[in-house]
Amino acid sequence: MSDRFSAERESVERALHEVCVEYLPLFPVPVASAIEYGALSRGKRMRPLLARFTYQACGGRGDATRLACAPELIHSYSLMHDDLPCMDDDDMRRGRPTAHKVHGAHTAIVAGAAMIPLAIAVARDALTELEVDSTRTRGTIAALLEGAGAGGMIGGQLRDLRGEGRALSLEALEAVHAAKTGALITASARMGAIASGADAGSVAAVERYGRSIGLAFQIMDDVLDQTSTTVALGKTVGRDEVLQKSTYPALLGLAGARARAESLVGEGLDALSARGLLTHDLQQVANFMVTRTF
Amino acid sequence: MSDRFSAERESVERALHEVCVEYLPLFPVPVASAIEYGALSRGKRMRPLLARFTYQACGGRGDATRLACAPELIHSYSLMHDDLPCMDDDDMRRGRPTAHKVHGAHTAIVAGAAMIPLAIAVARDALTELEVDSTRTRGTIAALLEGAGAGGMIGGQLRDLRGEGRALSLEALEAVHAAKTGALITASARMGAIASGADAGSVAAVERYGRSIGLAFQIMDDVLDQTSTTVALGKTVGRDEVLQKSTYPALLGLAGARARAESLVGEGLDALSARGLLTHDLQQVANFMVTRTF
Repeated sequence: MSDRFSAERESVERALHEVCVEYLPLFPVPVASAIEYGALSRGKRMRPLLARFTYQACGGRGDATRLACAPELIHSYSLMHDDLPCMDDDDMRRGRPTAHKVHGAHTAIVAGAAMIPLAIAVARDALTELEVDSTRTRGTIAALLEGAGAGGMIGGQLRDLRGEGRALSLEALEAVHAAKTGALITASARMGAIASGADAGSVAAVERYGRSIGLAFQIMDDVLDQTSTTVALGKTVGRDEVLQKSTYPALLGLAGARARAESLVGEGLDALSARGLLTHDLQQVANFMVTRTF
Repeated sequence: MSDRFSAERESVERALHEVCVEYLPLFPVPVASAIEYGALSRGKRMRPLLARFTYQACGGRGDATRLACAPELIHSYSLMHDDLPCMDDDDMRRGRPTAHKVHGAHTAIVAGAAMIPLAIAVARDALTELEVDSTRTRGTIAALLEGAGAGGMIGGQLRDLRGEGRALSLEALEAVHAAKTGALITASARMGAIASGADAGSVAAVERYGRSIGLAFQIMDDVLDQTSTTVALGKTVGRDEVLQKSTYPALLGLAGARARAESLVGEGLDALSARGLLTHDLQQVANFMVTRTF
């Protein structure tokens, strides 16, 4: 995907940088520095690419890159809090020391929480800029709020912790991952569709696509935690074993986990095809979920 | 104020309880429990009273109590994070053990952050219920976002920490408090005015009122930390001295601090009077800031 999407990822990076320049002067310097550190670190930018591509696929007018920054800010906040000493206590993230290692735990807590209202403000302003009407704006922000909190990511974040040190069934594991990673990936895809003005059937298809590839993404995260290196991945590998977390490879074996991820990607693509929404970009993003090495 | 506003405070409690019943099933049980613990603990409910009363004073139609719960949820999140071991490390809040003492630090971090999107969803739904149009809805949510994050409360929360262990000038101290407590109190007052459809001059007057009484509130917090008891206040007293925080009594003496708070309340009331917005309720809330004993 690095080749196929490098230009798109570049424009996401530019938009995130612009967001920092525009909004961060409103924050006191230490908080602003920690937010910038979290938002501008090297990332795959899957969520903004998804939001942008579903917006395009559903016929949205104009460039949704700024809007697409909002779920990435939520994602960055969740990483910042996940890595805290009283959470996963991790030292490396995206190839650099974690935010609390650089800025201290209290600044990381404050800055992480500050990224939630920031993300919502960024989405709201971007929707105004795109001249999206109030009904679609409401729906788009609702999707973001759900992805950010209620029953979604935050639930999984906690269930993930509770799963440490004990074996989970495959079903329970899928529920954890669907909640944690899946909710925000699904929300990113839905946001683009809703903002574009897509009808309910198309939004539902995009949601199924998001849910399937989000789970595939998480399965491959577990696979990469076993097979990749800390340098390639940019975060500490082998953490799952240290934390005695239930993982897909532990339950299905490496080959079984890969097969499950590939089958999920297929289901996601089928959902889009059935509604005539399968663009080349959305196909590539889905394929990247199972071919990525970082 | 306990007598004057007991009925109003009761209806705020009911509305907060209803919010928990309606929204918390969306969260996994440990997060829901911690949110409920934080939201339903005994509080003065200054922020919801303010939002409700400014909405009434500016001629808003219907009951804004549900809308008024939103800033209280933001306030509860900030208390939950403030009390964390890596922040103020406090054991008592509102007469009970702090959230992390009961639910653990990681649940308190996750639940605190979850209260931000929850508050925004509650405000959004309440504005729909009140049939507030999209321009006013946008302005009201913007006020809440500012109070919750950008340059407001979160800034002060951090500056407050940095002020520990060293003396601050009066000017610097006012900046800390205006940012931390003031931003959300001011936002609560502004939300009611904006949602009601008040013109720019009235919103500005309500903002000046909120800013003045918010600072008075904080000054009296410092005074009570020195003169009250842990039982009456429901949180550990004498913490400021232990943490070597700069306080108003330390800078102005107890009598000087009280006088400064009273003068600020007068300024706030004058701002409302000048626009014909000084209701009995808004006067009573302002007076409570300097007469309260808890």
